Amino acid sequence: MSKELSNTSKLRIIPLGGLEQIGMNMTAFEYEDSIFIVDCGLAFPEDEMLGVDLVIPDVTYLKDNIDKVKGFAITHGHEDHIGAIPYILRQVNVPIYATKLTVGIIESKLAEAGMLDSVRCKVVKYGQNINFGCFHVEFIRTNHSIAGAAALAIYTPVGTIVHTGDFKVDYTPVYGAPIDLQRLGEIGKKGVLALMSDSTNATKPGFTMSESTVGKTFDTIFNDHRDSRIIIATFASNVDRVQQIINSAIKYGRKVVIDGRSMVNIINVASELGYISYPEGTIIDLDLMKNYTDEQLVLVTTGSQGESMASLSRMAANIHRKVTIHPGDTVVFSSTPIPGNEKSVSKVINELAIKGAKVIFQDTHVSGHACQEELKLIYALIRPKFAIPVHGEYRHLQANASIAMSMGVPEENVVILKNGSVLEIDADSAKINGTVPTGAVLVDGLGVGDVGNIVLRDRQALAENGIIIVAMTLDKNTGELLAGPDLVTRGFVYVRESEDLLDSAKTEVELAVQSTLDKGITDWGKLKGVVKDTLNDFMWKNLRRAPIILTIIQDVEM
Amino acid sequence: MSKELSNTSKLRIIPLGGLEQIGMNMTAFEYEDSIFIVDCGLAFPEDEMLGVDLVIPDVTYLKDNIDKVKGFAITHGHEDHIGAIPYILRQVNVPIYATKLTVGIIESKLAEAGMLDSVRCKVVKYGQNINFGCFHVEFIRTNHSIAGAAALAIYTPVGTIVHTGDFKVDYTPVYGAPIDLQRLGEIGKKGVLALMSDSTNATKPGFTMSESTVGKTFDTIFNDHRDSRIIIATFASNVDRVQQIINSAIKYGRKVVIDGRSMVNIINVASELGYISYPEGTIIDLDLMKNYTDEQLVLVTTGSQGESMASLSRMAANIHRKVTIHPGDTVVFSSTPIPGNEKSVSKVINELAIKGAKVIFQDTHVSGHACQEELKLIYALIRPKFAIPVHGEYRHLQANASIAMSMGVPEENVVILKNGSVLEIDADSAKINGTVPTGAVLVDGLGVGDVGNIVLRDRQALAENGIIIVAMTLDKNTGELLAGPDLVTRGFVYVRESEDLLDSAKTEVELAVQSTLDKGITDWGKLKGVVKDTLNDFMWKNLRRAPIILTIIQDVEM
Repeated sequence: MSKELSNTSKLRIIPLGGLEQIGMNMTAFEYEDSIFIVDCGLAFPEDEMLGVDLVIPDVTYLKDNIDKVKGFAITHGHEDHIGAIPYILRQVNVPIYATKLTVGIIESKLAEAGMLDSVRCKVVKYGQNINFGCFHVEFIRTNHSIAGAAALAIYTPVGTIVHTGDFKVDYTPVYGAPIDLQRLGEIGKKGVLALMSDSTNATKPGFTMSESTVGKTFDTIFNDHRDSRIIIATFASNVDRVQQIINSAIKYGRKVVIDGRSMVNIINVASELGYISYPEGTIIDLDLMKNYTDEQLVLVTTGSQGESMASLSRMAANIHRKVTIHPGDTVVFSSTPIPGNEKSVSKVINELAIKGAKVIFQDTHVSGHACQEELKLIYALIRPKFAIPVHGEYRHLQANASIAMSMGVPEENVVILKNGSVLEIDADSAKINGTVPTGAVLVDGLGVGDVGNIVLRDRQALAENGIIIVAMTLDKNTGELLAGPDLVTRGFVYVRESEDLLDSAKTEVELAVQSTLDKGITDWGKLKGVVKDTLNDFMWKNLRRAPIILTIIQDVEM
Repeated sequence: MSKELSNTSKLRIIPLGGLEQIGMNMTAFEYEDSIFIVDCGLAFPEDEMLGVDLVIPDVTYLKDNIDKVKGFAITHGHEDHIGAIPYILRQVNVPIYATKLTVGIIESKLAEAGMLDSVRCKVVKYGQNINFGCFHVEFIRTNHSIAGAAALAIYTPVGTIVHTGDFKVDYTPVYGAPIDLQRLGEIGKKGVLALMSDSTNATKPGFTMSESTVGKTFDTIFNDHRDSRIIIATFASNVDRVQQIINSAIKYGRKVVIDGRSMVNIINVASELGYISYPEGTIIDLDLMKNYTDEQLVLVTTGSQGESMASLSRMAANIHRKVTIHPGDTVVFSSTPIPGNEKSVSKVINELAIKGAKVIFQDTHVSGHACQEELKLIYALIRPKFAIPVHGEYRHLQANASIAMSMGVPEENVVILKNGSVLEIDADSAKINGTVPTGAVLVDGLGVGDVGNIVLRDRQALAENGIIIVAMTLDKNTGELLAGPDLVTRGFVYVRESEDLLDSAKTEVELAVQSTLDKGITDWGKLKGVVKDTLNDFMWKNLRRAPIILTIIQDVEM
């Protein structure tokens, strides 16, 4: 397949994930004998993916072209950009390049997976160029809701591509410097073939507020709640947010407790690498909390999205090992619910309120993604010939496309890609030419890819109506019914309260099976069909339900 | 239980639903030998209620006191206030009183359930008093997102209770007159013991906008999209919204098509009863659409919440029988997503955008519930001694409680109730004294109450990891294994790709069973335990999964 599609004079840009399935960001760049990949993210399962833990991209295309693949460039350390690394690198083991914090977070994931020794991770500084075969990739400082974010200037034989990664323009970031607008302008001035920019907030007018504005709100909250314990939930990876909570804590004389496994991990990495700083003794262990009064403490926790197993949700549900919510507590949600999580967040807020806590969720969060005016700024600096919106649902990509056009990119030069589409691009043209295999690989426990559509359809049917199992044993020679049919159900009805119904069902099945056997029919397929039809009709008539019906026949040599 | 709790000198207010479980509004008022009930709503299932269609309140208390129950007063025609009627009235068949449109909608539900002849529904006019034993109930005009909404003044032997129902203050409603503030003031002036008021928007400052403001937005949209077909999705029951779409359609020379079963039903009822009006020929049948061009049509549909089976979602997914979305269509979401529906709505928007439709979802919806300033207005008119917030999640009830206090109700006179709590109230005091049985009864198909916690837990386990069934046949006398163990799975793994794993599992089970039988152990319980432990260990070790394991043993007399 690769051979047929290849075209030696053109650059090929192939999104392997990240467009239809949100998260799972991964884009391959291919030119002649070189392929390199931007990002390696996972997605969280959709509601209908029952029992699935996470979703990773199908990298058949990379495996089929493994000799060309030079490495990964990772833009930042969020799960939707790095989460698939422990899975994909088992199949495509090439070097990974990223900035310091991003490498730190990746290595902590690799260590958990026992893969630290088998994967090569290399730290890149802003301004540094990395060679991936015929590609040279420069990492450029940006701002985002995690430190160490980078845009990429990808120098290719057909021209320069700028990929923003996830970004915002923050003139007063908490850690480090603002996005390197000068360098983006300089690159733009030299001529850029295509801009691939973050579409997440492309439907939102104006500018995203600076992360540092949240710090002022924290100060106000600490000042207004001097008498109460303060608990603040936020995203585990938002190191700058935690830094600001620490800053307020220091100012108002409180000790900081970090709770929640993922947050503890990331804050440890960030502390070691110098992305977060505080006087010794500021952060104390959860177990030492008892030595302090409520007014001396602030807890920083996971669970801002209402995730049922996260720290704050456990506190709210009264199942946290060490923290009990009591009247007078002030709980701050420093986040906005990601679409789909609104109900879980509401549930946690209600549980906290019932326990007497005051809940605050206003003005304590800003987005990490550029709004419309920031996107315009980037288009104005880069002035690309082609625009390829990335990172967002279709409507977000479409909104970014409109912005590109409003900034002078001709309509025919704006390309919205699908996962697996192959965009062939050179100095003059950009055209979709064919597709490569892509898709979502479902991870359930240790199983990668052993759960697919059939299994999910069964799980949905089981979830909806449960299962009835009919077991019977036949005489191998005579076909006579020796045992059963016995009916066993799971997830169907309360057996105790529905005894009469199940008895009647059993009788009907028995009659139907016996009358079939009496006709001399002993074919198992036919018998199973008779059982299924009989039970289906019976249950639909009586309950309007369609459980899965599974008949097991065994035979015995008498 | 009723006897023990009864207290002849006090009024008892008992919420049987509507507080913890959103929706399912139902409150009993009891004094000596009289009980009457306000509303009879259903709730839609929570995410974890797999396979459940809807949820109704447990009315054991009413059944146990059936000789006291005089009737239902229904405040308005929304599902969360009337939806349980076809189920509850089978158990508690007493007269229902409501305003004209509400009765119309209830009767159309009863007709569907084949219960029209067995239930007595009576139309009440605003200002009219109904007797329920020792209670007199006056229906008072309010505004809401459905016409015919009423507040209730409940005259009891211990004083007057005002129950707002769901309401807003709309000075310029589309149908009928504004809320009867004069009468509320008059009743308040005479002295009101307790106010039970709608808490839905109690966390929101300011005033809710008038329904008629949406009409202006529709006019703008119709004016700006003269060349395209317009499709507007809204709540099926929002008759005034549909009226405004019809008004704009007439103004801009379009025919109106109503699509979606629930919307067609309600618009039919509303038309017959005069709650909606238009020149003949304005509304045309879906089948006649083909006689008109895009610019001559507006479609009004269900599906504004992204419900997968509703009309708009079918159009978006390309499975609507008669309507195909094409470039140039303008689709308006005249709604805001109810918490929990955000993701489904996003999905529909993306599908529409991919098909080339322009999607509009700004300024085309207003809430039907009172915000903080409106609640203050009602407190100012009623000046109740006690405040009992109703209709909302706990945090909303709490916000309403704060408003009550800010309006002068002493903190000790503000009562937040739970479902089943019995509030005993007289001229001097309001105290919670005991509880009655309450809860959520799950309806799945025709089964009412035959799905409960055990069934749901099984469905969750099945959904998460599927099921492995192990079948075997033993010799009744010798205990010898005659057939099996055979393993069958559903919703577990791709059988074809996991053949080796399942073969190994089978071998392990076989060995374990045989070695147990060899020890002379033929007790089925023990054998099942051996199978379960063996498979559990095997699957956890290999896949980190815990499917349901079900062993079926049959025996045969040789």
